[in-house]
Parts: sequence; C-alpha cells; structure tokens
Amino acid sequence: MNPVIGILGGMGPGATVDAMQKLIRQTPARKDQEHIPMIAVSIPDIPDRTQCILNHSPSPLKKMIEYMRILENAGATCIIIPCNTAHYWFEDLKRHTQVDMISIIDAACQQVAEQRVHHVGILATTATVRGNIYQHALSGQQVRSTLPDDAQQQAVMNSIYAYKAGDFSQSRALLLPVVDSLRQQGVEKIILGCTELPLILEAEVSATPDAYLDATDALIKQTIAWYYRQVTHSPVAA
Amino acid sequence: MNPVIGILGGMGPGATVDAMQKLIRQTPARKDQEHIPMIAVSIPDIPDRTQCILNHSPSPLKKMIEYMRILENAGATCIIIPCNTAHYWFEDLKRHTQVDMISIIDAACQQVAEQRVHHVGILATTATVRGNIYQHALSGQQVRSTLPDDAQQQAVMNSIYAYKAGDFSQSRALLLPVVDSLRQQGVEKIILGCTELPLILEAEVSATPDAYLDATDALIKQTIAWYYRQVTHSPVAA
Repeated sequence: MNPVIGILGGMGPGATVDAMQKLIRQTPARKDQEHIPMIAVSIPDIPDRTQCILNHSPSPLKKMIEYMRILENAGATCIIIPCNTAHYWFEDLKRHTQVDMISIIDAACQQVAEQRVHHVGILATTATVRGNIYQHALSGQQVRSTLPDDAQQQAVMNSIYAYKAGDFSQSRALLLPVVDSLRQQGVEKIILGCTELPLILEAEVSATPDAYLDATDALIKQTIAWYYRQVTHSPVAA
Repeated sequence: MNPVIGILGGMGPGATVDAMQKLIRQTPARKDQEHIPMIAVSIPDIPDRTQCILNHSPSPLKKMIEYMRILENAGATCIIIPCNTAHYWFEDLKRHTQVDMISIIDAACQQVAEQRVHHVGILATTATVRGNIYQHALSGQQVRSTLPDDAQQQAVMNSIYAYKAGDFSQSRALLLPVVDSLRQQGVEKIILGCTELPLILEAEVSATPDAYLDATDALIKQTIAWYYRQVTHSPVAA
C-alpha cells in the first residue's frame, strides 16, 4: 500500500489549505509526479471544538471519527489534523483507527526541545489553553510558559473567530497587542498553537520567523519526514 | 445526500490548493460550519497530460478515473478538475461517473461571453493549445483568439514546468515577455488557461485583474453557484 497523507480538515478550511500548501512548498519535488500524495476531507460541519470544551456544547468527536473513516477508506495511511484544539480528542481518535497519526502538539513541542527554547509564549484557543494541552505536553521539558492574561486570551479567541468569519483586519487588530505583550514579558518564541494564527500573523512570521514556532509548520515537517521514511523502507518504492 | 465538492487534483498540487483557497475565500461564510464541504484527492502520480497529447506517452485517463472513483466513494456529489489540459479527457471522465461535473473550459468561456470580450489571448499548455481545447469551446462565440507564436508557446510551457519544479522566478521570467506580446497585439483579456498560470502571475492579476480571465476563478464561481443551488433546492437543507 503506497503511503498517502490523509488530512482531517475543515477546522477551519483556511487552515486545511495552509497545511496543504506548506506540505507542497516543503516537498523537494521537481515535477507533479514527485509530490506527496494526499487526500483532504474538509467537511466543516464538525461542531465547534472550543465551545464543546468550555461550554459542554455538542462534541465534535463523532463527526471527526466519521470523516477519519472517509480518509481511511480512500486509502490514507497517515492522518494529520490541522487544528490544535481538536487534539483534545487525539487519543480518542487514535483508538478508532489502525493507520498512523501525527500529533500537531507533539510536533510543536518537539521543536521547542530541539531548538532548546527556555521560555515560550503560548497563543491558542481558550479551549486549548484551559484544556492545558500545550502545558501538559511541555511538562516534561525545562521550559517556562507564559500565557496571555484573561482579557488578552479573550482577544485571541475573538481574533480567531474574526478570521474564521472572514474579517482579516479585525483579527490582526485584536491579536497584535497580545503578541507585543508576550514579547515584552521576555518570551524567546511564541508558539502559534492554533492553525488560524499563522494565517493572521503571516506578515509578522515572514518578517521575524525566529520569533515564532508555527505548530502547522512543525506538523508538516514531521509529516514529510514520515512520508520519506515510508518510501525508503517500502519493499516496493512508490 | 448533502452536496459535497470533489476535487480531482494533483495536476499540479499547487493548483489544487489554489482552487480550494479561491473556493474558501469566495464563500460568504461567517464561521467554519458555513463553509462548503469538499474532498480533495491530490495523488500526483497521474501521467503528464501534455506529454500524452503531444508525444503519445502513457495516458492519464486510467488514473484519473481511479481517483474520481475515490471521490465518489467518499461522498462527492460534484467533481471539478483544477487542470485545463486534463479537460481533453472531460467527456471520457463524464461517461465514467453519475455525479455532476463542471468543466473549467466551459466556465472560462462562459465568462468570455458574459463579459462580452471580443479579443482574447490564450495562455495554456502546448497540449491545450494544439488540442484546440479553448479554440473549440470559443468557436460558437464572436470572439477573436490570439495565441503565442511557436517560440513564445515553448516559453509558456517551460514556464509552467519551471513552476511545477519549484522555480518561481524562472517561471515568471519566461512568461512575462509572452504576456507583454499578447497585450501589444491588442487582446482585451488574457485567458489564464492553465491552473499554474494564476500562481505565476499572481502579482500581475492582483495589479490589473481586468486584464486577465483566470479559468480557475471561473470554475470556482460556477462551483459555488452549483453548491448554493443544491442547498436551496434540497428537501432537507444542509
């Protein structure tokens, strides 16, 4: 079975496309046929992840399992999810599939370790923050985490919803003061721990890439590495 | 059955993502859940379309049918192909599926008619040009078509392959003189009749959008219109 990346997307759709674009741009292909095969399911009727974690509204898990099944049946052999908050259910999802999965949280935290960062700022949805998703994953490392205060965290969440609603300038206006505040508190890098954030901060990341750790980018780097391991180890190369 | 857009992609992968991004950006959604459901198969081992048409190398049809089947089984109810050259086989593909399909060529030519353009330049792969794909589709309209000369057409083809190989600056350097030449010959609009071209000419299209007719954009506008017709007419709204 040839290795095929399955993308459980739609959370949100823009982030799905960003992940695909990063995968394509970082693949050392000289022609179409050398690119990494992928299948993306972006059916965005999955219930809001943040609302479920914070307010006990309907769970997205059932739909995520359903769309993961579409990817499996379509031939995906490794599934990734370009949504940090959805990783609250990562272990549940893993139990429902036989194929490989790569965690965006683990990928980002591994970069924190590899780059020997000692003080990170965490920008993420309120659910990712309150669910301690990053704090838990970083707990084994000697790294100090700084979070936005409550009012700032509300601004981050509003920024993410503004981006999802198509209001790019509002999303930036809400987010930039929080970025400045984290930097003034001495963080070495800011983890962009929600897949909308690298889209909102595209200009800033492009200007000072070392100041950020883009979780989507970390996930894609591990995904590409996974793919080439499969191709190399496969008895019949793809 | 809910309407779901199926994208038969990978020809090339960058063009697939461009089509998805255009679909997302043009959808009037205020939150993730209002976006249009889509499934994209980007398995780029499909044989080169241009090489097949010009040099009788292996046909891409069998793989295209195979990947179209993946989309159908995954639940796609309308299939689009963000690759102009692949539309050489559009009628063959239509015969192999029960679901709706929208042609990028028809979508672009319909825009030519709606915008009452009288003189178009055609930029496309050498196979799309030699296969008369656009000339045939425009033959019912009172519209004059100007093509690049043979040397310029070779430059267009080399530009497309350079983009697919990741060499963006070379792809631009090859293409811009051909664009200038078409404009000097008095064309009102240039049809970007290969899905890599709007990516290569992104800056030019952004600066003077009225000078171009982006076939991918035309396809996406028809796809969005198709979707909202389904949702409106569906006995159970999505």
